[in-house]
Amino acid sequence: MKLLVLNEAKHAADASFVERRCAVTPATVLRLTRMGLTVMVDTGAGALSGYSDTAYTDQGATIVDVADTLPAADIVLYVNRPLPTHLEQFKPNTLVIGHIDPFFQQELVENMAGKGLSTLSVEMIPRSSRAQKMDALSSQASLAGYVMMMQAANKLPSILPMMMTPSGTIKPAKVFIIGAGVAGLQAIATAKRLGASVLAYDTRPVVAEQVESLGGKFLKIDIGETGQTKDGYAKELTDEQKARLQDAQRDAIADSDIVITTAQLFGRKPPVLISKQTLALMKPGSVVVDMAAQSGGNVEGSVPGEVVNVEGVTVIGTGHWSQCVARDATDMYANNLLNLIDEFFDTDSKQFVLNLEDEILAQSVITHGGEITNSMLNNAYTGG
Amino acid sequence: MKLLVLNEAKHAADASFVERRCAVTPATVLRLTRMGLTVMVDTGAGALSGYSDTAYTDQGATIVDVADTLPAADIVLYVNRPLPTHLEQFKPNTLVIGHIDPFFQQELVENMAGKGLSTLSVEMIPRSSRAQKMDALSSQASLAGYVMMMQAANKLPSILPMMMTPSGTIKPAKVFIIGAGVAGLQAIATAKRLGASVLAYDTRPVVAEQVESLGGKFLKIDIGETGQTKDGYAKELTDEQKARLQDAQRDAIADSDIVITTAQLFGRKPPVLISKQTLALMKPGSVVVDMAAQSGGNVEGSVPGEVVNVEGVTVIGTGHWSQCVARDATDMYANNLLNLIDEFFDTDSKQFVLNLEDEILAQSVITHGGEITNSMLNNAYTGG
Repeated sequence: MKLLVLNEAKHAADASFVERRCAVTPATVLRLTRMGLTVMVDTGAGALSGYSDTAYTDQGATIVDVADTLPAADIVLYVNRPLPTHLEQFKPNTLVIGHIDPFFQQELVENMAGKGLSTLSVEMIPRSSRAQKMDALSSQASLAGYVMMMQAANKLPSILPMMMTPSGTIKPAKVFIIGAGVAGLQAIATAKRLGASVLAYDTRPVVAEQVESLGGKFLKIDIGETGQTKDGYAKELTDEQKARLQDAQRDAIADSDIVITTAQLFGRKPPVLISKQTLALMKPGSVVVDMAAQSGGNVEGSVPGEVVNVEGVTVIGTGHWSQCVARDATDMYANNLLNLIDEFFDTDSKQFVLNLEDEILAQSVITHGGEITNSMLNNAYTGG
Repeated sequence: MKLLVLNEAKHAADASFVERRCAVTPATVLRLTRMGLTVMVDTGAGALSGYSDTAYTDQGATIVDVADTLPAADIVLYVNRPLPTHLEQFKPNTLVIGHIDPFFQQELVENMAGKGLSTLSVEMIPRSSRAQKMDALSSQASLAGYVMMMQAANKLPSILPMMMTPSGTIKPAKVFIIGAGVAGLQAIATAKRLGASVLAYDTRPVVAEQVESLGGKFLKIDIGETGQTKDGYAKELTDEQKARLQDAQRDAIADSDIVITTAQLFGRKPPVLISKQTLALMKPGSVVVDMAAQSGGNVEGSVPGEVVNVEGVTVIGTGHWSQCVARDATDMYANNLLNLIDEFFDTDSKQFVLNLEDEILAQSVITHGGEITNSMLNNAYTGG
């Protein structure tokens, strides 16, 4: 089988940013070729994550010009998703793997189904222990947590750790993390490393212990029944619960030097957690990071891709967090895809076996044989 | 006595940057007024370090327009140094305190002497235990160490800590710190907090223990006799020693993800420690911070005030490091000046007593009574 990897800095689905990551590393190329795959890598695909074309050819890849090779590919690996112009060049049954963003890319997904492509959306890989090693959403979110905390620290006009000197004592900065999922927990860990005093909140009381094991304090707010979905995501709250939450968080936000919001709802627009009125209560120069700025925003006034001043507060909406550490993000994402392919590759026939009975593929393969095969998506698309 | 504090964002000696720090805080204003000083603060002086005019008046200051009040001042506090146009407005015997940068500001210092001003250069405050609480160079250098490490970490395409995940293991980043003075030690501490593997070098073997107590490794290089001056600065090396040093450091630099150079020689141009050839040996995307970029540079190709790419390496020459954490830098600097004034203020006569017999004032007061009173400076100016 022929596997193709694109240079997404050249072939970007979203023209507003340059993708720095790549879907393979020289190390995963070696593993894939040993499995019996022919690996074709687009020129310069690894340049922005630190891997030269030579590094790939040394491990068995062929460097190609992608325009010529789209029709030859059996498997195409993306960090993001295909450009609309790519679709018509693939042969039917080509397996396309990437961050398809399917809930917000209905037209693309429908076209991929219409072209007979098999689409594997890494966002839809279930959060099971068997799938952990393929879980790109988690690997990238973990790096995002580190990056968000570091960017916030760099914008704050104070240091994070306590410092006791003959010139006076500096108190540790106060950091408040809203949402203690993978990204939130890594942000907490990074803030603690830097010596900050850390408070965190999550609608799922079950994560309090994890926050505390990292040295953070968990903010307890009584908003009645909450919980998590079977995939480990926070459930959406009622309007009354949201209002009680905002009230209770207001004091914590006003008292913080840095606030990082990581509240994302699977397949839905993220909730607004911080209003402009609340931002105005913070000390001038404080920093808020809106992890969800790109997809709608947790913070009123945040701008996707930018750092802005709102009510005297620096609001960071950079987005594409993990690619700020493109080298590590590439290594982890490439490993996720390698583990995925390895799991379903038949070494005798040297074929990727698209068994839709398997629970991982049943959820993550969203188009196949001309159909949209994921019922959650079909429901979402039809407004169900 | 009337004490005046300027808004140096408006009255800058160096037009290429905006000073964000201030020489007083509301807390030090309160202390100074209680001592019997009349404190006049230029409008907006604390704005960029987080203090409003009201915060100063609440503690007893008067907000003034500096242009009208220069002739009235008995003591003038600068973060940096006076503009040439300020000098003619001061009355003789006015005490001017600030970072005068005297070795590189001969004309200014000569003019200050000529006008009969008393100039106290905070850089010349000795490094004695009695003077520690007034040591602005140390308080700002300590913050600089933190800032340099954080800026480097933010530019590196990898995270600093080790991360073990189902998606693979990320090794800790390798950091090499050249020069383990106040700034270098704080950079080491910050890198260790972030989980990096840290190596450090200093020409003074005496600091090896301090490096190791922070969890860093000390690079041992035999270059014969070295040592430190009585002020605790590294002695300048011979050309042969420099060459042996560069050779020995080359491997350490090539093997590092981040290198921070903090080598400064008191009153002299800093030594070039890293050549372009050595930069070319580093992995693409590695980061080098040149603490001394503004004053000549430890790194070939570094540009004052900028972040540039040299041989594939990101070279940070931002400078003015401590003002990136302007709130803390202001707090510490204001404390240093308060401690200095407090030390020499006679509470009965309510006068600052300029006793040039005192060992701190003997070194730090560089002009008085129409003369340049510091012999080290006189020697430097006459090429001695």
